Parts: sequence; structure tokens; C-alpha cells
Amino acid sequence: MNHPLDPTTTAFDRVRALYDPELFRSTGHQLIDTLSRHLEHCRTSTGPVLPWSDPQALTQTALASLAQHTADTHGGSPAAIVPRFQQLVEQALAHSIKLHDPRYVGHQVPPPIPLASLCDALGGVINNPMAVYEMGPWVTAIEQALIRTLLGQVGWQYPASGGIVTHGASLANLTAVLVARNVRLGSAWEQGLAGHSGPAPKLVVQADAHYCLARGAGITGLGTSHVVAAPLDARRRMCPQQLDELLATLRRAGHPVIAVAASSCATPIGAFDPLDQVAEVCRRHDVWLHVDAAHGGATLLSPRHRHLLAGIDQADSVTWDAHKMLYVPALCAFLLYRDQRHSYEAFRQNAPYLFAPAAPGMAEFDGALRTVECTKRGAALGLWGLWSLFGPGLFADLVDVTFDLAQTLYQKLQAADDFEPLHEPQCNIVVFRHRPAALRDAPPAVLSEFQRTLRRTVMESGEYYLVGTTLDGQAALRCTLMNPLTTPDHLDGLLQTLRAVGTRCLASATPPLPGAPL
Amino acid sequence: MNHPLDPTTTAFDRVRALYDPELFRSTGHQLIDTLSRHLEHCRTSTGPVLPWSDPQALTQTALASLAQHTADTHGGSPAAIVPRFQQLVEQALAHSIKLHDPRYVGHQVPPPIPLASLCDALGGVINNPMAVYEMGPWVTAIEQALIRTLLGQVGWQYPASGGIVTHGASLANLTAVLVARNVRLGSAWEQGLAGHSGPAPKLVVQADAHYCLARGAGITGLGTSHVVAAPLDARRRMCPQQLDELLATLRRAGHPVIAVAASSCATPIGAFDPLDQVAEVCRRHDVWLHVDAAHGGATLLSPRHRHLLAGIDQADSVTWDAHKMLYVPALCAFLLYRDQRHSYEAFRQNAPYLFAPAAPGMAEFDGALRTVECTKRGAALGLWGLWSLFGPGLFADLVDVTFDLAQTLYQKLQAADDFEPLHEPQCNIVVFRHRPAALRDAPPAVLSEFQRTLRRTVMESGEYYLVGTTLDGQAALRCTLMNPLTTPDHLDGLLQTLRAVGTRCLASATPPLPGAPL
Repeated sequence: MNHPLDPTTTAFDRVRALYDPELFRSTGHQLIDTLSRHLEHCRTSTGPVLPWSDPQALTQTALASLAQHTADTHGGSPAAIVPRFQQLVEQALAHSIKLHDPRYVGHQVPPPIPLASLCDALGGVINNPMAVYEMGPWVTAIEQALIRTLLGQVGWQYPASGGIVTHGASLANLTAVLVARNVRLGSAWEQGLAGHSGPAPKLVVQADAHYCLARGAGITGLGTSHVVAAPLDARRRMCPQQLDELLATLRRAGHPVIAVAASSCATPIGAFDPLDQVAEVCRRHDVWLHVDAAHGGATLLSPRHRHLLAGIDQADSVTWDAHKMLYVPALCAFLLYRDQRHSYEAFRQNAPYLFAPAAPGMAEFDGALRTVECTKRGAALGLWGLWSLFGPGLFADLVDVTFDLAQTLYQKLQAADDFEPLHEPQCNIVVFRHRPAALRDAPPAVLSEFQRTLRRTVMESGEYYLVGTTLDGQAALRCTLMNPLTTPDHLDGLLQTLRAVGTRCLASATPPLPGAPL
Repeated sequence: MNHPLDPTTTAFDRVRALYDPELFRSTGHQLIDTLSRHLEHCRTSTGPVLPWSDPQALTQTALASLAQHTADTHGGSPAAIVPRFQQLVEQALAHSIKLHDPRYVGHQVPPPIPLASLCDALGGVINNPMAVYEMGPWVTAIEQALIRTLLGQVGWQYPASGGIVTHGASLANLTAVLVARNVRLGSAWEQGLAGHSGPAPKLVVQADAHYCLARGAGITGLGTSHVVAAPLDARRRMCPQQLDELLATLRRAGHPVIAVAASSCATPIGAFDPLDQVAEVCRRHDVWLHVDAAHGGATLLSPRHRHLLAGIDQADSVTWDAHKMLYVPALCAFLLYRDQRHSYEAFRQNAPYLFAPAAPGMAEFDGALRTVECTKRGAALGLWGLWSLFGPGLFADLVDVTFDLAQTLYQKLQAADDFEPLHEPQCNIVVFRHRPAALRDAPPAVLSEFQRTLRRTVMESGEYYLVGTTLDGQAALRCTLMNPLTTPDHLDGLLQTLRAVGTRCLASATPPLPGAPL
């Protein structure tokens, strides 16, 4: 539907019409009303939590959407734009997963607190990109203020310590690996690694560490084959004694160790490494300790649970995502350094059109000197809004409510004879299996396949959203209790749904699973 | 101001109150009205374009803001939250640079079209993080649809070609360097570079290329000292003949060449490399050609200007930012590959809890397999909204209006005897000097210092926002005409402001500049 443009308008006229504040006002109010209804539908579980569609088909729908523009809207007529915009919003909502539905118990991504989303939306309108201070004075100032505040929670103090905000924990962890590499191998930034002689440098990571850490080795030229997994104890936490032995072995063989990356917590079952003991080992071996606290950093804000991070102040660097347990929209990650000077080790260049501070001391505020990003979204606006409105107590509440909910789920699983929790939860992550009576004696491969089928069938049904994982080669079900509005009743509903879907899966399996009705 | 919490509320109650759809509605409408007024103030240049503050002082203000939470708001009382939220919004607006003010003629970051910001805000509320398709069906589908659409503009076709969306051109260019490295040095991902023997691998970049490309060499272990600048012609475009000689020299010396990175356009003066000739040279030497079209990609959408990118279809990879000349809020960058299969070369791992596609063909839709990010914002929502509403014609208008405006500025500079344009603009970037009569014979160092002082004084005054750069060691003034509502009258005002501020600077310089009144 391409209509010829009205020949009496100029390009300038057409563009100017789109910047009309009144057009923004009318479409904006319409959007707020629609999103408010959407949040209400989520809260009351109206419709599926995930409206599953085939991705190829949905891409065709999206292509059709892109092709439907008309000269009426391009001419800037609000009468044409407002209803079309409403259609687009409704189309997006109809095909999106609803993290605000209390039946969402899946990945470590929260339903953002709506006020945080509004602060973030402010940033999307004013678009202050902050590579240099001038291009985002307020977003830079709030980043600095929040960095200092979170440093205090870790047990560090500005200006001896410092940090950056970046687009997610994958980037924060990459930046940490880069700094550790540049510090350990003095000339790596300028000379590269190709000239390195002697035994290869190694990166030691918790055996369950997030895949982005191994990627960090692949990206930075260390090589993923030089990532060494630090062994775990029975609760999947890094074992300090075995770490000690590992570092001693690497040292004897002459391998430089770039860093040890611990997890607070690791993704699979949410295990928190014993940081005080790990730090003691690293200190003795003079090795950089990085703590990936992307998920668990917020635990510091809960007086009840912050003991899980005891020793974090002895790390060299810490990753902490605000878009996980601080309930702001993606992406907003903090990378904190015990020694602020290290933050300048990641990148060591200049761009004359950007970084030419006339005043001394500007380097700290010209953020791009220390982040992968040049142009960067004002990513901290959501956290600034929540903290300014509610203070740290809000985050303590969120940690406490969701961690308690995981204990509730764990107790329900223990009490049920057809569910098996696979660990005692330390946070809001719970991994378990459904083992109906018919599968009591099923071999591991069959039981694994059943969990996968069950998970996928429930997911596609839209009744609940949970995820799966693999532990020691066996598939399992995995919940992260990220929605603080999920109640014990919803958890009962989850187990009932798994039972009902499981019964149907067993009945329809081809070939039949052992114990399936003939 | 920390008040004790009301002991009758529970953590669950307090949190639930913050998810109330009605609270979202009232604060949301208030925000829209405030932002609408802000856009009106921008359009009419009410107040400074940049409200300059000392960064240390502003950080103290931000710290004070974080400390002002009260138990009234944490208890979830709308009567306390709504006015406090309004204060926060007004505080943010008061200290932010106004890209929507037509006196903003600075960096290559646009005032987003407000409808794009609203689409982006939708994403910030629903927070679909899309590492896997399930966690963002619609945001994934629109990414795929937009990738296919932009591929078509480059002259490529899905599924032979493909691409990704990532958080900005720095990441897109890093990913491209990584792919080229992994393709050229087969074992680099797994084995790292430390085992590489023989002459060091080299990365060839346009001499004016964005600093993130040299950073790419630093990050990926190639080393910044192994970045080789491809010489420029008199218009600061890559010279194909000298590139040919350079590649021949490197080959004779046995250096593997990872890639040649061309620019469309380069940042300093907006020069577009002659891609067809550069591509011919690269093909002859069998070297990967990457084109950084972060700024200039949108030129493909203008029938009048797309000739500047002739030959881009012969590249191996192309970076194209939507948050530059496609007028959406930061960050949204496309990395396009002529051969889609290469997109899987950047990263080569697995995370069982994320990537376990039950159906074949899901790899394409489980985005994190191919992006640095795991959790990723639905960054393409703004572009999807604009394209669905207005089609490619909108972007042609934006390119044409802003490129024409640069010609207008160029003509005004040429016509004035106290301004010197330093190049004929190819796009919407114009670099020039102010040389009042008093400085007609000033030595280069004095003239440079004058431009820097002038730029900084104008910037801090808030009357206009332009930037500076350094060309061949000499400081200059630099405008990017990013705001399509800037008019020729605003450009006259800019020159008048520079003259007036220049006169004051000359009068107050210590020591006096040559020609300054005694």
C-alpha cells in the first residue's frame, strides 16, 4: 500500500509534522492507557503467559507490518497516525511474553517495576548518549552517584574504588577479563598476544560460570581451550581447596593466570561461591579475582541474605546487573573495581573529536574512555528512579520475597512424591524433576527426555513459563522466581499443570515412554 | 530522610503496590504531559540547549537525590509517589542536553522521532530480553524482518545473507573484527593467539576510522600496534591505489591481513570511501572487507544520495546504526553479513539452559548465539515503528533535509570572510574554522587554541551546541546537522554567536591572543 506523496508538502514539512509535541502527547497517552490495561491483564493472568508462534510465520507477519505504511501517515496526519500506532502497539503486545504475569517463573529477567520503565522511557525521549559528559550531564551524574552507592554496598569506597555502567553482564564480564588480561600481560593491548612466548595464559572460571566468561577468553585472544574450570563441591560451589591445588599446578607449569572468575551466584542452580575462602586462595597466589554477581549482587541489599556474599570486598572486580534483581528494564550492568585506576586499563586510546577534556578530572565523566560503548543509552535512569523513590529497602523486599518464594517451592517439591528438587535453593532459583509414578524406574535418558518434552509442551501452551537446564548430563526443569507477585497458589498451579501435561505427554509419546498407558 | 516503615505492611504488600496498573497510568500520563511540554520548549529554544554544570557538583546533586527516599513512597502511597516522581523527571530534564532544540548541531546522535521513543518505551515496559526466541517472540520477529529489509537496501538477499542487531556500532564493529579474525585465523577462537607463529596478523583501517576499530584489535588480542592505517586522498577518503600497495607490501612480508575496514562515512569530516574500487582491491588480495556505515548506511534510503555507497554490496560485512541517521533512540545497530553463515563464526559455544532448540532452524531466532549480548533489549522496536508507519520515504526525507542543510552551512561559510570551511561536505558533517580579521595571520597553534576556547565557551553558554575536532594536528569546529528542524536562520545565528563569543574570547585572553585589543 504505497500511495504517492502529496506533492505540495516538502521533506522538511513532512519531517517537522512528526516532531509535533501534540502528536507525541496524543499517541503517548494512548500508549500509557494500553500498557496499563496490559499490566492489568498480566496481573490477572488473562490470556497465555507466552503466546507461542512459529518464528518463521511471525517473521512473515512482521514483514507484512513493515510494508503497510501509507502516504497518509508519512504526510504526518494525526488522524492517520494515531489509529495505526495503536494497531502496532497491540500487535506487539499480542506476540510478546508477559513477564508481569505471575505464572512467569522462567529466566533471570524480571518484570520491571513500571516506574523504572517510565524513567527509562524518559531516557528514550531525550536520548542523551553520554560518551562524553556534555552529551548527558544528568545521566552521567546519576551513574556516578549509583556507582558510589553500590561500591558502598560491596564494602568499597570512592574514589579509591570506582566503576562503569555498561549494556549487560556479558559486556561487564568481557571488560573485566580484558582489564585482567591487560594488567597480567602488560603489553597485550598494544602488542597483541601473537608475540607471547612460553606456556599459554589461562582463565580460571567456576565450572558452572555463565558462558560469557568462556566467550571472554575467545574474544580477547586467550582462546576458549585455555579456560580452566575450577572444580565444584557437592552444592555446585567453587571448592577453595581444589582451586588452591589448581592454581599451584598452573603455576608449576608456568602458565600465567589471567584471573579467577567466581560466581555469586552461578546460573544453573543459583549456587554462591564461598568468596572469603576463594579470595584468600587468590590472594595467596596473587591472582585477580573477578566475581560475577550479575544475579546475586542485589543480595547485598538484604540484611537477611547478604551473608551469601561475605568476602566480596576482597575481589578485584565485580559484575552486578541492575536489570536482574534490581528490577529495571534491560540493559543496565555495573562493573565495579576495587582499585579505580584499573578501570582505565581496559581501553587505552583517544579520539580527538570526543575526548579532549579542557579541564583536568574530566576523564572520570567522559564515560566512553572506560566502556566498550561509545554512544551509550542512559541505562541507569531506571535504577536512579527506583532508588530515589524507595531507597535500598525496596530491593531488600524484592530479594526477600522472591528468595522466600523459592523456599516455598522447594518445600512443595519435597512434600510431593512425584517431584524431586535437585538442590536446596540458596536464592530464587530452583531446579527439579517431575517423576510421575509411571517413570519411577525409568532410565536417565528417558527421564531427561520427559523433562524436555514436558517443559516445551507447557511453554507452548502458555499456561506457565519455566525453563530447562542440564545438570551432569541430565535434563531438569528450572524456575527462577523473578515475579514477586507469584504466590504459593501459583506454585501449586504450576505443579498441577506439570502433572496434567505430563500425563498427556506420557499418553501420546511415540514411542511410548516406559509406564505409558498402552 | 529515612522514616521507619509502617510495621503493618509486609514486603509482599509493599512490592505489590508498586505494580499497580493504576499507579502506572497516573505517573505515565504525567510523564507524557511533561515530556510534551519539554519537546515544545526544545522546539522553541526555550532555555539553554545544554545546561552546563560542573560534573562533580552535579554528581553531588544526584547523590542527594538518591538519599531522599521516604517510607511514604516505599509504602506505595500514590499520594506520595506521584509528586516525587514529577520532581525527579523535572530534575532530569533540567540537567540534560536537548537534542530536540534546533540549536543542537553537535555529535552524530539524533533527536529521536518521538514516535520511535514511544515504541522503545513499550519495550522498556514489557522487557522482552530475547536471548532466546521464547523470551521475545515479537522483538525477534521484527529484528529478522528489519534485517531482511536492510539487507535488501545493501543489495543482498536473505537467506544467503543475514545479520544481527546489537547495542551500538562499537559492538557491531568489534563483532565484525572477531568474525574476520576467526575466519582468517582458523583456530583463534579455541586456541587463542598466543600460539600464533610467524609475522603478526594485521588489521587495516581507514586512517580516519572510528576509534572502536583500533579498539577491536586491542580487545581481540591482535594488538593496537598491528592496526595499519590505509592512506587517504586529498578529500580524506581511502585511496584504492595506496591500499593496493599496502596490501601487497603486507603480503610480501607474510602478515596475514584480518580485514580492511572502510568507512561510509568516516567521522572527522564525513568522507565516504570509494567502496567499489576498495572492494575490487580487497577481492584481488582475497581480504575481508568490512564497511563501517554506522552513520552513512541510511544514505542507501535516499535516491538522491545512495550513490555515495556504490559498491557496498561487494563488502563482506556492514555496520549500520539505526540510532544515528534512522532517528531512533540509542542503541540499535545492525551488523549485516553478505554470507549469513559467517554470523555463526563470532562465538562458538553453548549454554544448556539457553540454547537447546527442540526444533531445527531455531538457531537463527535464538539471537544470543550470534551477539555479544545474552540478555538484549528489544532494540529494534523504534525502527520497526517508524518503518511500519512511514516506510523508507521518511528516512529519505531525513537524509535529504540534513544533507541539504550541510550544503547551506557550507555556502554560508564560504560566503563569510571570517569563516573557513575545511572541506566540501559529502553528507551532514561540516568542519570549519572561525578566523576573525584579528587572527588572519595568527600562527597555527594560536588559531587552534582559539577554536578550542571558542567551542568550549559556546558550549558552556548553552546558546548552541557544536563540537570540535583535530585535523592534521590543527583544531577545528565541527557540526553535524542532526536535527532536521534546524533552519538556515539557525545557522546564521550560529555564525553570529561564534563571532560574538569570539570577540569576547579575544578580548579576555590571557596572555592576549595576537590581534586582541590591549
